[in-house]
Amino acid sequence: MTDYNKVDENIIQQFRDYVSGKVYAGNDINEDFFHDEMPIYGSYQPDVLIEAKSTDDVSTILTICNEHKIPVLARGAGSGLVGSGVAINGGVMIDMQGMNKILEYDLDNLVVKVQPGVYLHDLAEDCLTKGYMYPPDPGEKFATLGGNVSTNAGGMRAVKYGTTRDYVRAMEVVLPTGEVTRFGAVVSKTSTGYSLKDLMVGSEGTLGIITELTLRIVPQAKHTISLIVPFETLEDCIATVPVLFRAHLKPQAIEFMERKIIIASEKYIGKETFPKNIEGTDVNAYLLITFDGDNEDEIDLQMEQAAELLVENGAIDVLVADTPNAIKDAWAARSSFLEAIDSQYKLVDECDVVVPINKIAEFINFVNEAGEKYDFDVQSFGHAGDGNLHIYAVSNDEDKKEEFNKQVHDFMEEIYTKAYEFGGQLSGEHGIGHGKLQYMREFEGEINTNLIRGIKKVFDPNMILNPGKVVSVD
Amino acid sequence: MTDYNKVDENIIQQFRDYVSGKVYAGNDINEDFFHDEMPIYGSYQPDVLIEAKSTDDVSTILTICNEHKIPVLARGAGSGLVGSGVAINGGVMIDMQGMNKILEYDLDNLVVKVQPGVYLHDLAEDCLTKGYMYPPDPGEKFATLGGNVSTNAGGMRAVKYGTTRDYVRAMEVVLPTGEVTRFGAVVSKTSTGYSLKDLMVGSEGTLGIITELTLRIVPQAKHTISLIVPFETLEDCIATVPVLFRAHLKPQAIEFMERKIIIASEKYIGKETFPKNIEGTDVNAYLLITFDGDNEDEIDLQMEQAAELLVENGAIDVLVADTPNAIKDAWAARSSFLEAIDSQYKLVDECDVVVPINKIAEFINFVNEAGEKYDFDVQSFGHAGDGNLHIYAVSNDEDKKEEFNKQVHDFMEEIYTKAYEFGGQLSGEHGIGHGKLQYMREFEGEINTNLIRGIKKVFDPNMILNPGKVVSVD
Repeated sequence: MTDYNKVDENIIQQFRDYVSGKVYAGNDINEDFFHDEMPIYGSYQPDVLIEAKSTDDVSTILTICNEHKIPVLARGAGSGLVGSGVAINGGVMIDMQGMNKILEYDLDNLVVKVQPGVYLHDLAEDCLTKGYMYPPDPGEKFATLGGNVSTNAGGMRAVKYGTTRDYVRAMEVVLPTGEVTRFGAVVSKTSTGYSLKDLMVGSEGTLGIITELTLRIVPQAKHTISLIVPFETLEDCIATVPVLFRAHLKPQAIEFMERKIIIASEKYIGKETFPKNIEGTDVNAYLLITFDGDNEDEIDLQMEQAAELLVENGAIDVLVADTPNAIKDAWAARSSFLEAIDSQYKLVDECDVVVPINKIAEFINFVNEAGEKYDFDVQSFGHAGDGNLHIYAVSNDEDKKEEFNKQVHDFMEEIYTKAYEFGGQLSGEHGIGHGKLQYMREFEGEINTNLIRGIKKVFDPNMILNPGKVVSVD
Repeated sequence: MTDYNKVDENIIQQFRDYVSGKVYAGNDINEDFFHDEMPIYGSYQPDVLIEAKSTDDVSTILTICNEHKIPVLARGAGSGLVGSGVAINGGVMIDMQGMNKILEYDLDNLVVKVQPGVYLHDLAEDCLTKGYMYPPDPGEKFATLGGNVSTNAGGMRAVKYGTTRDYVRAMEVVLPTGEVTRFGAVVSKTSTGYSLKDLMVGSEGTLGIITELTLRIVPQAKHTISLIVPFETLEDCIATVPVLFRAHLKPQAIEFMERKIIIASEKYIGKETFPKNIEGTDVNAYLLITFDGDNEDEIDLQMEQAAELLVENGAIDVLVADTPNAIKDAWAARSSFLEAIDSQYKLVDECDVVVPINKIAEFINFVNEAGEKYDFDVQSFGHAGDGNLHIYAVSNDEDKKEEFNKQVHDFMEEIYTKAYEFGGQLSGEHGIGHGKLQYMREFEGEINTNLIRGIKKVFDPNMILNPGKVVSVD
C-alpha cells in the first residue's frame, strides 16, 4: 500500500495563501461531495475541498500535493456512476465547477474552447443559439464537460455521431507534478507522436487534470423526427436493430426499453406517452428512434423505410413524433430512467456493459434469466444502436445491504463473463472508477492491466492523482 | 546509447527453425527494403528480413529479439515518407505483406476483420463490391492497413469522414516482449480503462506489432460529384474554404493545388484536365472538391450552393464532374503529385505540417516567401479542408546534397515555428519516423516528449522495437 501523508494545518494554510478559490476543511465540507450518483459504492470525506478558479490554482494544488504526497482528485458535477469523483483516500478534492466559462467559438475551424466545469447542457444550448450542435448527448445533461471527457461519455447519439472522444481536439492539462502542458491541436488531423490527448480521454482524472478543452462542433441538423416503436417481445424488438443498419439507415439514436421501466418512468414524470396495449396485444418492449438531417424529404424517406422494416420484423405499430413538443415528450420518459429507479428503490447498483449489437437480444435474455436466481430485481434499458446496456440490480431490503452487494457481485461476474464471450467490454460510457476496479484485471487481462499501471506511473510517479480508480494503487 | 546485440548465425538459425515464413540474411535482402518513399533520409540494410505468416511468427521473432536485445521492426509496403519502416539500427525487419487476408465481414456490427498486410486498395475495392465503404483515403493506395493505422493515415476524405483512427475498433498486438494481447472491441462505445488502442494508432510500430485489425466500415454513398474550381490567386482559392464550412456544406474532400504542380502532374500522367487560362485570365490555383451522399437532389443542392459561394468569392469558373469517368479524370492528376515530383527532381524532401484551416492562405504565403531565400524550389499542395499541407523542397543539384539537407533543415525550422504559432502541428498524417524526430522535442516540448518516452519504456523496456522512431533511444 502506498503511504500517503495527511493534510495538516500547515498545508491547508498553503492552499489558503496560494490558491485563489475558496478552501473548505473538515466539517465545513458539504456532504454532497462524499459520493457520486451511485452511493452504494460508499461515502468518503475529503480532508480539504478547494474551489479551483484557474489553471494556476490547479497547478499550485497539485504541486503542493505532489511535494507532500497527498492524494488529490478533480471533481466535476459529481454525476458519475462508478465512484471516480470520490475521495476514497481522503486528501484533497478540487471542485472544478467554478471554471465554467465558454471561452471562444472558432467557426472557421468548427471548434469551441471551454473551461472543464461548463455543464454539457449549457454548451449544448449555447451551440444551438449559433446554429451549431455539440453532438455527444449522455443522459445526464448537468455533468461537466471535463467529466464527460474523462469518462469518454457516450450517450444517445453515439450511433450516428460517435462518443465524446470524437469531439475532443485539444486540451490543457495539469500533470500530477503541477506542470502545465497541452495535448492535441485545433486541427482535425494529426500524426505527431503518440496521441496523449486520446490517452487522457477516458482516463477518469487519473493522469492529469484538464483545465481547458477545445471541442469540435458541427452544423445543427435542420430536421429531426422520432419514432416510438412498440413490440410484443424484447427479442423481436432488439432483433430489428441490425436490420435497420443493413438497410443503410442512419438513425441518430436507437434506444430500447422494457415495459416495466417505462411504466416506472412515466409514473415518475407524471405523463404517459408510450402505449401499453395495442388492440389486445400487451406491449413488452419498445424502440425509441430518432432520425436527423438537413433534408426533410431524405428524413421522411428514411422514416418510411424504417417503419416498413420495423413492421415487417414484428413491430406492433410505429408512432411518429415530428414536432419539437412531441419529440420532447417521447424522450422525456427515457431521460428519467435513472431518477425513476432511484425514487423507487433503496438499494441500487448497475453496470453499463457493452456488447456487439447483434448480441443484445441474446445477452439481455441471459441477464434476465441469470437475474432470477438472486433476491434483487433486474431492470434494463440501453443504447440498442451501439450495444451499451444499462442493467440495474434494485432492492428495497435495506437491512440486507451486505448480502445485496455480495449477490450483485456474483451477478456482475456472470454478466461480464458473458459480455466478454460475445466480444464486449466492462463499460461503454461510465468508466471503471473504484466501483468496477475489481473486475478490470480479470476481464481486461494481466497484460493490459499492467500496461495501464505502467502508463499511470509515467504520468504520476507518486500515485497521488485520483488513486485507486481505473487501476489499483499497488 | 542503448547497446544492441548483433544478429549472429545462431539467432538466424533460431528464426529459420521456429518461424514459418522465409528468412533472408545479408546480401539476400532486396535493396527495396533499405529505404521508404523518402530516400533522402538514408539507406539502411537490416541484418535479417523475415516474412511473417502468422501472429505466432511475429511473437516468436519478438521473443527472440527481446531475449537477445536485437532491434526489430515491422514493415508494410514501405510507402512511408518519414523513415518509420526503415532499419536504421540494422537488426531484424519483419515483412508483414504476407499477412494479407481479409478475414471476415460482420455486417450487423459494420466491421471487417483483416490482417495488417492487406493493401488499402484491396480492402477499399472489396468493401465496394458489398455496398460498403472503408472511408480513409490516403493518396497511396498500395500502403498496408497496418501501416495506415500505425501512422493514423488521413487522406482526402478526412474532412467529412475523419482519419484512420476513427475506423479502428480493435486490434491484436504482439508486444515487444513477444506477448500477444488485444486492445479495443467490436463495439463502438467503450470506456474500459485507458484507450490502449488509441495509443497504438499513430505510434508507428514503436509500441507493438499489429497482427490483426477490426475496422469500421460504412454504407457506400450512392452518389458522388466533383468540382474543379480555378482561381487567379492562391489566396482567393484558400480563403473560400471556411466560407463553405460556415454555409454548413459538407464536402467529402477539398484539395488545393498550385498551377505548377498541376502542370507537372498532368505532364507525368499525359492527360490535361485542369484549365490553365480562362478568357485571358491565368489560373494560378485550384480547389478540387467532392460531395457525396445518398440523395441525389441533396448533393445537387449542395453543389449549387457551393458553386454560387465559390464564384461570389473569386472563383473564375466551376467545372462539374458528375460521371464516374469525369470524376476519375479530375482526381487522376491529384493522385500523381508525389510521383510527378519524384520523376522531375533528384533531391526531394517534404513535410506534411498541419495548420488550422483559416490559416492556410497566410501560412502558404509565408512558406513561399521563406522558400525564396533557399537554393531549392518549393512546391505545395494539400488538404484545404483540414489544413494538412504537403510542402516539398526539390532540387536537381545532386552534388550539393549536404547543402540541400542543411538548407531544408533551416527551412523546416521556419515552417514549423510558424505552424506552431498558428496552433498547428508537425505532421498531419505521415508521422515522425526518424526523418522528423529532430523536431519533436523542440516543437512538442520537453514535457510531452518525456511522457512519450516514458510510455515507450512501459511497452518496450529493452527499447528493441523500431528504435529511434518517434522518440529517441536515449
